[in-house]
Amino acid sequence: MKKVKKKINSAILIIGNEILSGRTQDLNVSFVSNWLNVNCGISVSEVRIIPDIEKRIIFNVLDLSKKFKYVFTTGGIGPTHDDITALSISKAFKVKYGFNSEAYSILESYYGKTDFNISRKKMAKMPAGSKLIYNPSSAAPGFKIKNILCLPGVPSILRSMMPNLKKYLMKGPLTHSKSISLHTYESHIAKDLDKLQKKYLSRIDIGSYPFFRSGKVGVSVVLRSINKDVIKKCEIDLLKIIKKKKLKMYKI
Amino acid sequence: MKKVKKKINSAILIIGNEILSGRTQDLNVSFVSNWLNVNCGISVSEVRIIPDIEKRIIFNVLDLSKKFKYVFTTGGIGPTHDDITALSISKAFKVKYGFNSEAYSILESYYGKTDFNISRKKMAKMPAGSKLIYNPSSAAPGFKIKNILCLPGVPSILRSMMPNLKKYLMKGPLTHSKSISLHTYESHIAKDLDKLQKKYLSRIDIGSYPFFRSGKVGVSVVLRSINKDVIKKCEIDLLKIIKKKKLKMYKI
Repeated sequence: MKKVKKKINSAILIIGNEILSGRTQDLNVSFVSNWLNVNCGISVSEVRIIPDIEKRIIFNVLDLSKKFKYVFTTGGIGPTHDDITALSISKAFKVKYGFNSEAYSILESYYGKTDFNISRKKMAKMPAGSKLIYNPSSAAPGFKIKNILCLPGVPSILRSMMPNLKKYLMKGPLTHSKSISLHTYESHIAKDLDKLQKKYLSRIDIGSYPFFRSGKVGVSVVLRSINKDVIKKCEIDLLKIIKKKKLKMYKI
Repeated sequence: MKKVKKKINSAILIIGNEILSGRTQDLNVSFVSNWLNVNCGISVSEVRIIPDIEKRIIFNVLDLSKKFKYVFTTGGIGPTHDDITALSISKAFKVKYGFNSEAYSILESYYGKTDFNISRKKMAKMPAGSKLIYNPSSAAPGFKIKNILCLPGVPSILRSMMPNLKKYLMKGPLTHSKSISLHTYESHIAKDLDKLQKKYLSRIDIGSYPFFRSGKVGVSVVLRSINKDVIKKCEIDLLKIIKKKKLKMYKI
């Protein structure tokens, strides 16, 4: 992976009626976002969830492709009629939609010639010029065209394919984070956090998240930055505030 | 609620770095989407997740406001520095950002005069002309301005507020669904489902979702339509296919 010093942004485009309708709980956003940060120093700056409708896929692929360094799509690359991601992306970039010979060979040898039916063959069709993202779980590959990287929607299969994305990505700086959970409520520390954020400006991102879990009530303060030293300094300032206000910390 | 016969669409705009970074698993999309369909006959046609950045909030609020009948935002209406939803929406619509007198009274009586500090007062600030969405959990109200309805990010609080949205919404036709889970794999039924979708065209939406859970492998076929009779007819056709192919159904 080629390394760069500046932050690399990206978007996730989730294609699937089942997520939009609420039938299926998305599990890919948090996984992909964490994985990209830890393994590639790439941050996810926007997520969109859209239905299996060709013109909506075309619009969003082109729009996100212009706005972000990489776009990761999930869903719509299976064998059924509602899997239209590859065809739609071909139309978006005005390239031919047809068999990728390498994908065809992989699938043919996986299923065997007699079981390689027309629906399975569909999974070897993609935009001309695509490069494959290999699938160690169920053979059917994802693909990369321009800055769009297409993955399946099934979380277990997607997860198994992530390492095979690396060769197509540049490596940016990792975003580090430090989380401190306090026995308090947001409005008690809001003014202090505001001052702290103003002191560090864009060098750090300070988040404040109230929680109510297992009978415990509190606030998690999260410091995020690509610079570990800045996090350390900001943490020292935060610990001073905590001491001054006599707040208790959760041991998590 | 005023009833209309045609489908009503909407979008969800999730505002929050913690969801984008993968730190927090979103639980609001599936809940809000299901709730809106069952209670109001409103379907969610797009979801976006964006960071706590003013210009990104302004752009997306205006963009989604034009494209969809309603836009539901979640997150960014608490007392801390990173809660900038109300201010950003005021700027988006070029209206004054200031105290809403009713929200101020609610919060003052909830906290008591002495504990109603500057951070808590911030939660009474919103775009001029907003109407309140009452909060039975923790007092701080959401608000509605134009076709934007702003809710908090904490799932338990959001859920408690949903019934108070109803008075601002028109009621559309409920989307009904029927799900049949089969002991098979997608490529075995893909051709049949394609034919079935072509027979019914836009009157029904047929989805095919492979699953691998608790050691069970199969495909869920989901029929969705605002017309119950169409679902019934399509189900009969599907059962014929299942019989002909001698497929087993899961009892779920």
